[in-house]
Amino acid sequence: MNHLTEDILTNVITIRPDNSHKGTFGRAILFGGNKQYGGAIMMSAEACINSGAGLTTVITAEKNHAPLHARLPEAMVADFSDTELVADLVKSANVILIGPGLGLSVTVLSILKQLLKAQQENQWFIIDGSAITLFASHQLTLKYPEKVVFTPHQMEWQRLSGLEIADQTPENNLEKQKELGATIVLKSHRTEIYDGEQIWHNTVGDAAMATGGMGDTLAGMVAGFIAQFGGSSETIGAAVYLHSKIGDDLAAEHYVVLPTSISHEISRYMKKYATNERKES
Amino acid sequence: MNHLTEDILTNVITIRPDNSHKGTFGRAILFGGNKQYGGAIMMSAEACINSGAGLTTVITAEKNHAPLHARLPEAMVADFSDTELVADLVKSANVILIGPGLGLSVTVLSILKQLLKAQQENQWFIIDGSAITLFASHQLTLKYPEKVVFTPHQMEWQRLSGLEIADQTPENNLEKQKELGATIVLKSHRTEIYDGEQIWHNTVGDAAMATGGMGDTLAGMVAGFIAQFGGSSETIGAAVYLHSKIGDDLAAEHYVVLPTSISHEISRYMKKYATNERKES
Amino acid sequence: MNHLTEDILTNVITIRPDNSHKGTFGRAILFGGNKQYGGAIMMSAEACINSGAGLTTVITAEKNHAPLHARLPEAMVADFSDTELVADLVKSANVILIGPGLGLSVTVLSILKQLLKAQQENQWFIIDGSAITLFASHQLTLKYPEKVVFTPHQMEWQRLSGLEIADQTPENNLEKQKELGATIVLKSHRTEIYDGEQIWHNTVGDAAMATGGMGDTLAGMVAGFIAQFGGSSETIGAAVYLHSKIGDDLAAEHYVVLPTSISHEISRYMKKYATNERKES
Amino acid sequence: MNHLTEDILTNVITIRPDNSHKGTFGRAILFGGNKQYGGAIMMSAEACINSGAGLTTVITAEKNHAPLHARLPEAMVADFSDTELVADLVKSANVILIGPGLGLSVTVLSILKQLLKAQQENQWFIIDGSAITLFASHQLTLKYPEKVVFTPHQMEWQRLSGLEIADQTPENNLEKQKELGATIVLKSHRTEIYDGEQIWHNTVGDAAMATGGMGDTLAGMVAGFIAQFGGSSETIGAAVYLHSKIGDDLAAEHYVVLPTSISHEISRYMKKYATNERKES
Repeated sequence: MNHLTEDILTNVITIRPDNSHKGTFGRAILFGGNKQYGGAIMMSAEACINSGAGLTTVITAEKNHAPLHARLPEAMVADFSDTELVADLVKSANVILIGPGLGLSVTVLSILKQLLKAQQENQWFIIDGSAITLFASHQLTLKYPEKVVFTPHQMEWQRLSGLEIADQTPENNLEKQKELGATIVLKSHRTEIYDGEQIWHNTVGDAAMATGGMGDTLAGMVAGFIAQFGGSSETIGAAVYLHSKIGDDLAAEHYVVLPTSISHEISRYMKKYATNERKES
Repeated sequence: MNHLTEDILTNVITIRPDNSHKGTFGRAILFGGNKQYGGAIMMSAEACINSGAGLTTVITAEKNHAPLHARLPEAMVADFSDTELVADLVKSANVILIGPGLGLSVTVLSILKQLLKAQQENQWFIIDGSAITLFASHQLTLKYPEKVVFTPHQMEWQRLSGLEIADQTPENNLEKQKELGATIVLKSHRTEIYDGEQIWHNTVGDAAMATGGMGDTLAGMVAGFIAQFGGSSETIGAAVYLHSKIGDDLAAEHYVVLPTSISHEISRYMKKYATNERKES
Repeated sequence: MNHLTEDILTNVITIRPDNSHKGTFGRAILFGGNKQYGGAIMMSAEACINSGAGLTTVITAEKNHAPLHARLPEAMVADFSDTELVADLVKSANVILIGPGLGLSVTVLSILKQLLKAQQENQWFIIDGSAITLFASHQLTLKYPEKVVFTPHQMEWQRLSGLEIADQTPENNLEKQKELGATIVLKSHRTEIYDGEQIWHNTVGDAAMATGGMGDTLAGMVAGFIAQFGGSSETIGAAVYLHSKIGDDLAAEHYVVLPTSISHEISRYMKKYATNERKES
Repeated sequence: MNHLTEDILTNVITIRPDNSHKGTFGRAILFGGNKQYGGAIMMSAEACINSGAGLTTVITAEKNHAPLHARLPEAMVADFSDTELVADLVKSANVILIGPGLGLSVTVLSILKQLLKAQQENQWFIIDGSAITLFASHQLTLKYPEKVVFTPHQMEWQRLSGLEIADQTPENNLEKQKELGATIVLKSHRTEIYDGEQIWHNTVGDAAMATGGMGDTLAGMVAGFIAQFGGSSETIGAAVYLHSKIGDDLAAEHYVVLPTSISHEISRYMKKYATNERKES
């Protein structure tokens, strides 16, 4: 079992090349936020953009556009129902996050199915929250599982893997993860990442982070990191570690750490760990 | 008569257990905010979430969803009129705040009646603002009064108790509170808490806090504290004391203390007073 | 001619009495903000509430409610068209500001006429912006001119007084002001106040304050000060002076001073100047 | 080839005259923000107002008004479809920015054509983003090209000039710019300005600025600078240089520099460089 430490940040977060533009740092699509849980996708967007994704579009219920823009004019928006536009956006993205605050409606299920079908070989998918529940309960399948990350908490992992929480041992989890083929970020007070070869064990995180929206923020960071640094266990591990590292540091002064307060720190932390040159791809 | 002092904070605010998740810290429902007074429930939500409630849903008029989310994506939302959803949410909550900015309409009365009927034995209710007025003027009754807190100011207490402000002596208040059976947080420049056994007397607070929304913020803090620490006179007293303590400290530098500026400090203050381990329940 | 100096602040801004509540510090109604100029009344509200008015209600076009609440949940709101509610609100206010961002439509004229007719002897009116233009062009009249403040800039004063800007000498202004009977706050880079007896001359202010919304902020401060300290030339002078004093101080570090940045400082400044006890009225 | 350095700031940014009012510092109209890209014009507005433009009106899709006001009540708003109002606003402006987040719809093309036809001899136009693409693909023409600035990135310049990116040498660019007659701000990691006589070469800027919205912020700064300081290569160069200078400084602490974080610093930076008296015009 590998332990996530600060090394993962210096490995993954590279110095940006001088001759670059916003396209260099990826195009992220964030899919989520129904009429009840709109805040979730706003938090994902805040995390993704502050992580440095070049261009971020949030596809969410129309009612969420105004509050998202009031917080974050850097995001672009589209409505779920604008299917033609959505299809175009999805085509040009290199990372797509699906799930924060999406809910479990029939419409959402249909969107999820279409998205899974539309995955291209060069695109990473992150499947989070209710999209995991829908995926599990409808036995959906993946086109490129090696380019998919699931970010379940323990109950969602039970639905996805069939393993009761008590049975979620590293060995059992690894076996189930291999069946799925996708990377699993299993969230708990000490998050673990299963990537088909090894298990990455997070060493930081604090109970002050146990509040609604923390997972949405993590999912947005994973999207932002993949958009820039490419998909890999190391990239995902860096996002997981940094999310908890910032939370830990803020918990030194706060009884509860709000998810949005993590996003406000991401860019400063990344700067500190960016020591190596980025390899041009 | 007991005096609320800093001791109540160290007694109530415990160190969070490592092995915890957002569900560990409670589910709060905040009911309020009509088309005129939407800001009230936003301020309650800001106080509740910054106090550390695990999951907070605000049930309010649709027009309030966008500004609430612009300030606080950490909250979930529902509309009053979505009765099926509301019924589901209420079932799973462990604390329900009813009243900030709710107004006095017939619809609101009907919602209040339904909520009072739906109270479960393990749920705490906080009844604030116009919900107190409606409760008093329609002689409504409580299912589990020992799990109910009323937070009246002096005029609302007159409506609820029948006591003219001039007659609101500790003895008279205690007698009326015992008839009601619920805990009374009687707000004034020196707030008192009546809990059926004793009277808790707040020792802090400043005239700089005399501005619209201060009570909504207090109600949100009471909800957040009960969500995490369980309902009791001590828990309620800790919320009352901390609210005024922060106000006092901010008043050293401000002529008027805005309610939202109190919410921004809650988490830092709680951290300072969290010294004992939380007993696992 | 009197010069406004820091003395006016220590004279007007009194220490709040311990035994007080939000009602002690006044009820302000702010009337303004059509579909094009909604920001104006938001800035007035921000100034009024940060000045310490006890209860502030903003009557503005419905579309402005959400952004106002996103910035300032401390405000209550109503729509122009809700005439019954508006009439009730106006009755209970002790200060009413009319004009910021109101525009010149026929509806607005009709509202202005109704408001002027509804003035009670104990209510102060502040007439600003387009409400001044409408007042002048329709030869409207005042019920209690001694309880009215106009806050024109030079062009609006020309419309109201008939004096060309070149002819706006202190003597001419004073004569015209006496005819009107209301207090005039004549805004320029060195604002003057005409109160029927004397002329108050502002000694501070900076060209960095010459940006849209600065007058709306001043009008909100005048409303907030009258709400708490009662209407008088001194109260109005204190608001005028403090507005410019903060602007001057911010201009030491800023090329342009945004109106909202003034509002964020009001409460701190008032604290510094609050040295005398408030006389109970 | 001239290099933009700090000198351009001290040359252009003059001390404001004491006897001034908001009209002294110009009237800017910002045209942009459709239903998908509303954040773009919000970022332009934030940059323009923080640069010190006296009066700024944003003409954008109705859905963008609320989030804009939630961030920036200092702006005035109008909807594209309110053609009479828009025509009035355009007449009285001294600088008009067209393009950020405007999109490529038929309606937008028609608006662009009308605006170009409406240009007055004393008005500067800044044409940005999709308005450049529309201008190029429909072979539109300019009435007063010497009072127009285009702000293309390299791909937009290809559309406008017909030069493939590989062929965009200084010599070729200068030749094409002379044909157009307008000033070209060619954005890249080292932005260049072509003004018909010379080429200005930016010496600052950082890859941390390569994120969506950075160009919208620059366009807003150019508008704000022209509104106050008059249109000229020097004015445009000062805006370009300051934008990158702030970005550079923020990049010392941030891995990614959000566009809005640049706007928050503009006024402080301008204060530092304002050393000469403004010549009264």
